[in-house]
Amino acid sequence: MHFHVDETETSVLQSLVAENNRYADDNRQFFKKNDITAVHLVSSPGSGKTTLLMSTLNRLQADHALAVIAADQDSEQDSKRIAQTGISVKQINTGQYCHLNAKMVHHALKQLPVAEDGFVFIEDVGNLVVPEVFDLGESYRVLVWSITEGEDKPIKYPAMFEKADLIFLNKIDLLPHLNFNSEKCLNYLREINPKAAVLTGSAATQEGMCEWVNWLEKMASKSKTAAVPA
Amino acid sequence: MHFHVDETETSVLQSLVAENNRYADDNRQFFKKNDITAVHLVSSPGSGKTTLLMSTLNRLQADHALAVIAADQDSEQDSKRIAQTGISVKQINTGQYCHLNAKMVHHALKQLPVAEDGFVFIEDVGNLVVPEVFDLGESYRVLVWSITEGEDKPIKYPAMFEKADLIFLNKIDLLPHLNFNSEKCLNYLREINPKAAVLTGSAATQEGMCEWVNWLEKMASKSKTAAVPA
Repeated sequence: MHFHVDETETSVLQSLVAENNRYADDNRQFFKKNDITAVHLVSSPGSGKTTLLMSTLNRLQADHALAVIAADQDSEQDSKRIAQTGISVKQINTGQYCHLNAKMVHHALKQLPVAEDGFVFIEDVGNLVVPEVFDLGESYRVLVWSITEGEDKPIKYPAMFEKADLIFLNKIDLLPHLNFNSEKCLNYLREINPKAAVLTGSAATQEGMCEWVNWLEKMASKSKTAAVPA
Repeated sequence: MHFHVDETETSVLQSLVAENNRYADDNRQFFKKNDITAVHLVSSPGSGKTTLLMSTLNRLQADHALAVIAADQDSEQDSKRIAQTGISVKQINTGQYCHLNAKMVHHALKQLPVAEDGFVFIEDVGNLVVPEVFDLGESYRVLVWSITEGEDKPIKYPAMFEKADLIFLNKIDLLPHLNFNSEKCLNYLREINPKAAVLTGSAATQEGMCEWVNWLEKMASKSKTAAVPA
């Protein structure tokens, strides 16, 4: 049994997506113009996005200008944690919305000290279903996937996995205590997204953090090279 | 920074909720009339809902008529697993929808052999944000919360935790390997929902399964006592 949205809903969704895309294009231009690498973090609730982000900020802050946009449905839990790193953070409470949209990011960017040549991390609400249709104008989309969620998530939430540039398999320190089949996990992942970069690690134990930070820095210098006129 | 839905979206949402509530009332009457205990399972992706449900079905099937409605965005992963128990299961692919609604359940009920005096389990899409506004007409709503998601989920997704009749704290076998503070977890939970029943256990190791099945049977007999005319 398959369900599809009806006509009214489809037209509302289409106009929302069209408005979103205009703001996303603006954001993308802003990022390009200022050599900013914007990284959009998505995941299920409780995958460890905020812990990963805090480690990342700690590792990058000596060499890069950083800013964070953190979304939550109704609390300031994430921004309070992120503020401990000393990095500027703008909290967005999405309320009835279950994800960020480009307009929210657009407004947040105006209220943040965003430096040229730096990184902006955008942490979305924990949700594997909706955010995939909403482009924020980000440079890269990173899906944080905790291995405690099981191997089958890519085939259960395909749209989200399809759109990721990098999949970070998190909480790998729990592997000995789980009935988790890594081969099955990678097969499901490759079936849905054959191209994404894949990293494994644990933000809690710091395993894999070097490779992750290297990837971010590589992507940042790649964006800059691409921006130089021929 | 807080975001609220605009007028067009609000009116679309209101008419969706109104239509949903009509179907939910029908479903509720159907369940009451037939002495059926309908249990709606909600959670984040990967909390262990399907594993918990399979254990539950195995434990209840000797004494009760059972049927399952299983929702997934785009796969038949859950219904295939559930079918292994021998119980009738109707798979719903919600597609662009990020949750079940009462109309979907209404149609599924017509296609399932639902026996008087039994249980119907309704497994929703993994999502902690949206399903809370959609009443399915269920007798009880159960939130499966994996302790791997961290202690702060109730304050991050308050609407979902507020509406649960029972919270099942799952994957408790991983407690020795996590930095999880049980007292903090219960404090957050009680701040948002002081009334819900709370059970802990692990569907993987079968810990806590007896208490969970006892609760279900107690609720089923309670519904029946309530239905007897004075």
